[in-house]
Amino acid sequence: MPDTDASRLNEFQRIERFFKPLTLGNPGALGLADDAALVDPPAGFQIVVTTDAMVAGVHFLVHDDPADIGYKLLAVNLSDLAAKGAEPLAYSLVTALDQATKEGWIERFAAGLGEAQRAFGMRLLGGDSVATSGPACLTISALGLTPTGTARLRSGARPGDCLFVTGSIGDALLGLRLAQGQMPSNLVHALDPADRSFLLARLRRPCPRTAFAPALRTLATAALDISDGLAADLGHMARASGVDLHVRAAAVPLSATARKSVACQPELLPLLLTGGDDYEVAFTAPPSRALAIDEAASAIGLPVACIGEVRACPPQRSGQVIFCDEEGQRLVFARSGYQHFSA
Amino acid sequence: MPDTDASRLNEFQRIERFFKPLTLGNPGALGLADDAALVDPPAGFQIVVTTDAMVAGVHFLVHDDPADIGYKLLAVNLSDLAAKGAEPLAYSLVTALDQATKEGWIERFAAGLGEAQRAFGMRLLGGDSVATSGPACLTISALGLTPTGTARLRSGARPGDCLFVTGSIGDALLGLRLAQGQMPSNLVHALDPADRSFLLARLRRPCPRTAFAPALRTLATAALDISDGLAADLGHMARASGVDLHVRAAAVPLSATARKSVACQPELLPLLLTGGDDYEVAFTAPPSRALAIDEAASAIGLPVACIGEVRACPPQRSGQVIFCDEEGQRLVFARSGYQHFSA
Repeated sequence: MPDTDASRLNEFQRIERFFKPLTLGNPGALGLADDAALVDPPAGFQIVVTTDAMVAGVHFLVHDDPADIGYKLLAVNLSDLAAKGAEPLAYSLVTALDQATKEGWIERFAAGLGEAQRAFGMRLLGGDSVATSGPACLTISALGLTPTGTARLRSGARPGDCLFVTGSIGDALLGLRLAQGQMPSNLVHALDPADRSFLLARLRRPCPRTAFAPALRTLATAALDISDGLAADLGHMARASGVDLHVRAAAVPLSATARKSVACQPELLPLLLTGGDDYEVAFTAPPSRALAIDEAASAIGLPVACIGEVRACPPQRSGQVIFCDEEGQRLVFARSGYQHFSA
Repeated sequence: MPDTDASRLNEFQRIERFFKPLTLGNPGALGLADDAALVDPPAGFQIVVTTDAMVAGVHFLVHDDPADIGYKLLAVNLSDLAAKGAEPLAYSLVTALDQATKEGWIERFAAGLGEAQRAFGMRLLGGDSVATSGPACLTISALGLTPTGTARLRSGARPGDCLFVTGSIGDALLGLRLAQGQMPSNLVHALDPADRSFLLARLRRPCPRTAFAPALRTLATAALDISDGLAADLGHMARASGVDLHVRAAAVPLSATARKSVACQPELLPLLLTGGDDYEVAFTAPPSRALAIDEAASAIGLPVACIGEVRACPPQRSGQVIFCDEEGQRLVFARSGYQHFSA
């Protein structure tokens, strides 16, 4: 369709064409034709609410494929739900877009949302569509369900627990460097095309650990998703739980591609441990549950690694994360993670 | 506190200082220290979800008092809940702000949210805080509760129903003209300071009809809040219900200040009926309930006016709104309401 002014859809037509199909099977969305939407929580369940926004130029690159942007926006919210042990229920979407945004962009963005919906089981509930003269700002508020009292929080880690992490850490940081053209050329040449595709996919299409949520509910004492960087997010858990987290850096799971990258350029390792955008789950559990965790993870083909342990924290200070190398020497990172509005 | 770079709070400190106090009494917010928040819906209730965003330069003026912006952001979401007959429960907040935003701005913005919370009964649940290089984009996703099956939708209007509206229409449009310096000087002079304060307050501090929600649940057949303009929002109701709405323009309730304005400048009337930002409730109900509606409204000191009636719509077209003057002549407006991304 030609993208001329005369043929442009208005706000209501855009919603009808691109977003209403995402509500299929969700009568509570009221066809996106009301001021609000309805959710029927089953008795005995709590609603878990999480909200994540992405801004062009900050959380994604302006020329990224809109389908990847939509997919990632929903995936990062699903990741928060999964880390709490919650099943996906429904989500609201707010798009703040420049007036000049082309319909093709919105169509692909909605297609990416639809792909993530189908992959992880989620339905659009409602939202808002506004105009901005600035960079696109895209927000999802997602609702999930857990049987009452079973949500896993950051604050449940206890001394003696083991510390686990799903999947692999640091791929998205490498993917970002690659996408931004900031990867040293010797490293680019050390990676083959499959490696590069893998890293970009890890950046653009994070995989929320939704399938692992039921296991977290029953086996974990504390859990959170890794979005700001492994070191920073473990710091949040250590402070919320009032414990120290001791991490063996060598035990942190790296993909084959990340291992190849570190072999080529060893100074990358601290960056991978602090880089962010991993959307894996870090969680703690008593050692007695390690076998059950292994079985639950194997059943869904998800690697889970024990990377350290929880220890009591001296009463005079808040909990902290201590990374050690293979000789037991403490590693100190220049930055522990990404912060907006850093001091 | 001096607003120098060295003294600026980081993201977590800002959340702790300005937003965590808004979660008081809401243990499900987990002190804003987790990835998600928990809501316990009581058995037999549905959750009503609504989402409204405001962008600087579009929904508010850049130099507006941040306390008014915070107040209005929460109030417009509460207005959607009230129009569905829902009681306020909790809300998530996303702030996308420029890095240069001063802490004093955020403090006053949070204070405005707090005022609206206390006025209407609402608690902060969680959210996200991101940086943008563009205009501020502020989003609330609000949750309310209705006994299952009692939420009032746009689609319930039936031929023979009366059409009602709460409060008064058009004050916010006049307030906007005044705030933007676009009010003709003869009209500015016709208004006294109390009139001008009233109009600005109606623009900046809308009053969600939360107290009327229980009456809507039991008495209304259809309801929606008037945010895009009376004519446009009634159009939504007419199409959703598949009915025609016949409105006597002279019956639309105007405040004393708006009446004074129209007396001075009669061509203002169509603007008031299409202007938007009213945050009143339009609803329909059978004539047999008119007395009960009157009693329920009087009990909370809320004026409610019958402005027209619902008639069957010919099967070959969708429902529409028909405004008539006192002689029964049809009025046609140049624009029916505000749209983002107009064609």
